[in-house]
Amino acid sequence: MSYPATRFETLEVSADVGVLTAVIDRIPQQNAINGTLLAELHAVLDEAERTPACHLVVIRGASGVFCTGMDFSDASDSPDTVAERGGAEFLGLLKRLTTVPVMVVSVVDGRATGGGVGIAAASDFVVATPRAVFSLPEALWGLLPCCVLPFLIRRIGFQPAYSMSLTTLPVTAEQAHRIHLADELAADPGQFMRRLRQRVSKLDRATIAALKRYQRDLWFLSAETERAAVAEFTRLMSAPEVRERISGFVTAQVFPWESQR
Amino acid sequence: MSYPATRFETLEVSADVGVLTAVIDRIPQQNAINGTLLAELHAVLDEAERTPACHLVVIRGASGVFCTGMDFSDASDSPDTVAERGGAEFLGLLKRLTTVPVMVVSVVDGRATGGGVGIAAASDFVVATPRAVFSLPEALWGLLPCCVLPFLIRRIGFQPAYSMSLTTLPVTAEQAHRIHLADELAADPGQFMRRLRQRVSKLDRATIAALKRYQRDLWFLSAETERAAVAEFTRLMSAPEVRERISGFVTAQVFPWESQR
Amino acid sequence: MSYPATRFETLEVSADVGVLTAVIDRIPQQNAINGTLLAELHAVLDEAERTPACHLVVIRGASGVFCTGMDFSDASDSPDTVAERGGAEFLGLLKRLTTVPVMVVSVVDGRATGGGVGIAAASDFVVATPRAVFSLPEALWGLLPCCVLPFLIRRIGFQPAYSMSLTTLPVTAEQAHRIHLADELAADPGQFMRRLRQRVSKLDRATIAALKRYQRDLWFLSAETERAAVAEFTRLMSAPEVRERISGFVTAQVFPWESQR
Repeated sequence: MSYPATRFETLEVSADVGVLTAVIDRIPQQNAINGTLLAELHAVLDEAERTPACHLVVIRGASGVFCTGMDFSDASDSPDTVAERGGAEFLGLLKRLTTVPVMVVSVVDGRATGGGVGIAAASDFVVATPRAVFSLPEALWGLLPCCVLPFLIRRIGFQPAYSMSLTTLPVTAEQAHRIHLADELAADPGQFMRRLRQRVSKLDRATIAALKRYQRDLWFLSAETERAAVAEFTRLMSAPEVRERISGFVTAQVFPWESQR
Repeated sequence: MSYPATRFETLEVSADVGVLTAVIDRIPQQNAINGTLLAELHAVLDEAERTPACHLVVIRGASGVFCTGMDFSDASDSPDTVAERGGAEFLGLLKRLTTVPVMVVSVVDGRATGGGVGIAAASDFVVATPRAVFSLPEALWGLLPCCVLPFLIRRIGFQPAYSMSLTTLPVTAEQAHRIHLADELAADPGQFMRRLRQRVSKLDRATIAALKRYQRDLWFLSAETERAAVAEFTRLMSAPEVRERISGFVTAQVFPWESQR
Repeated sequence: MSYPATRFETLEVSADVGVLTAVIDRIPQQNAINGTLLAELHAVLDEAERTPACHLVVIRGASGVFCTGMDFSDASDSPDTVAERGGAEFLGLLKRLTTVPVMVVSVVDGRATGGGVGIAAASDFVVATPRAVFSLPEALWGLLPCCVLPFLIRRIGFQPAYSMSLTTLPVTAEQAHRIHLADELAADPGQFMRRLRQRVSKLDRATIAALKRYQRDLWFLSAETERAAVAEFTRLMSAPEVRERISGFVTAQVFPWESQR
């Protein structure tokens, strides 16, 4: 593959035989998600779909951080923009990860927070290194991981997803492996990835697509669930306390749990 | 909090900043569930709802027993009363644990049997000590844990819940942690509880309520399931063999698995 | 029990107090499933239903192989026959395992592949020895484990079932125990089986039947799911690439992953 022809702003993209690798690269923003990142991840998936030889898309994070969720601190963003991005746009990306006819693997080496947990959860396979840490701090903002939960529940089950959301406590790599948030725990992900890549190269893309579709049909989530996720996130984002916390963070870098209550 | 103003018959209740603790205290009855216990647990939840500063309700058992399920031996009870209590009333309590806008934690230190497993399963968080043991002996009576299962399945998944019900074999604390029946295994629950309490004190009650509601909506149980649970339990309780076993136990303390078959 | 009165072609069947044991015995075919095997397993379940004292059916495999799934190499079979057997007929057997009013235990000592994983998944209880290995290689043929997945998902959850199907990687006995594909891991299954047998002998068959029915009702799979499973398998089996791979295997014993692509 001669890809990429274009430059990316938030990703480092590289191509190898049958594999596209996207490294999230917004280090000053702790690899948080903004509109550009969502658009560029879609562009990588577009390219994967367009390239018949591509069987595997790998998502990583630069500099020991996987992805820390929605970027509240982007000065150009209004709360409404954040709500929209955190709602329909983000859910659209997660859903696409579960339908694109290639295998999507997230390699989590470092922190995955909020929406970053969602990207991992919606991936077909998650490889975690020992320094991976997963957490859902949304409730501390007065928010919920609305769009993450449908994908997290199908990956790890009801209770572990609930427990992460309610306690907001971090989950270590080893715990993540135990609850199947990480499918594989590997100090050297490269070695495992070679094995996985060799396996998946033996599958037809049509078979991967059929499996993704069939498994989705065997689960109980529906288009209704997706609408409800977006509606609930929008509702929560419109609460004055939430807006105040986000604005406090954007203007003074004060996290809600650091302020007086 | 100046609570409790009233005395309880089956619980020891104490209040601390943001926390209500209810200790099930029917030691001669092995902390079994009767109508008074259900009513008093509701009263504690009422108080939690009425107290805006309360974020946490903790349920424990006195004397190394968490709770051993329905009290068949209460001389004042007819089988119909037991059926009713084991059906709609008990299910009502479990459902309330999953909707009350505070975090509910069960600390299981010792035996949790039958309905006691249900109270743990419906709690938001379960801390088990190493001497916790969970079991569902209902099938030995010719009964099923009808009202426990909807909550147990969402907590630990279909197969572990099924396996516990069918084999009636006890599950150790370590096994319980592995299948996520216990969220945390702690020799000293106090230390973990302080950490959890500190976290949950940072959440708005409205956020806790929203999360509980939203998670329920993401699962597939319905009001129909609840009606079916009550109907099935009532049906099983009306079988002559079951009534005979209960009566044998009440009059002569003979467990069904001790009698001739 | 004086059973069996009849001889079996693909099973070794023996009866003991309250227990029927069926050992899959098609060693030259690696214990693969053909039409006779399905019919004979039904005959064993018929006998179990007819025998009021029978509480337990045990399924094993001869010679260190549990069962390696559909037999593609049976010369008498057309692809249409294989499709039919892999669809409605096989699903019918799995469904029956989940409804027959006795406890069904699979003892997996060696390989369980494809449909063999399905038999284990649909069993009430799975005991694995340390040399058990589970795998779903269907995708390498361009197929999916359509009829296995509904039962596998309810046993081990969405993600582990998906991961096995997509990666086609083998799952060791220890991993199988961790994800609850095996309920029990035992170097000496005999000892554990005696304990299980003693427990289940204390249950009424009506209670076992009621539990199986009630648990099915608490899960979200429907008759619609079953129809979709059969339809998807039939669709995949009709693809020219799939037929070519099966024919290559039948005529030259070439596995699809060994051929040039």
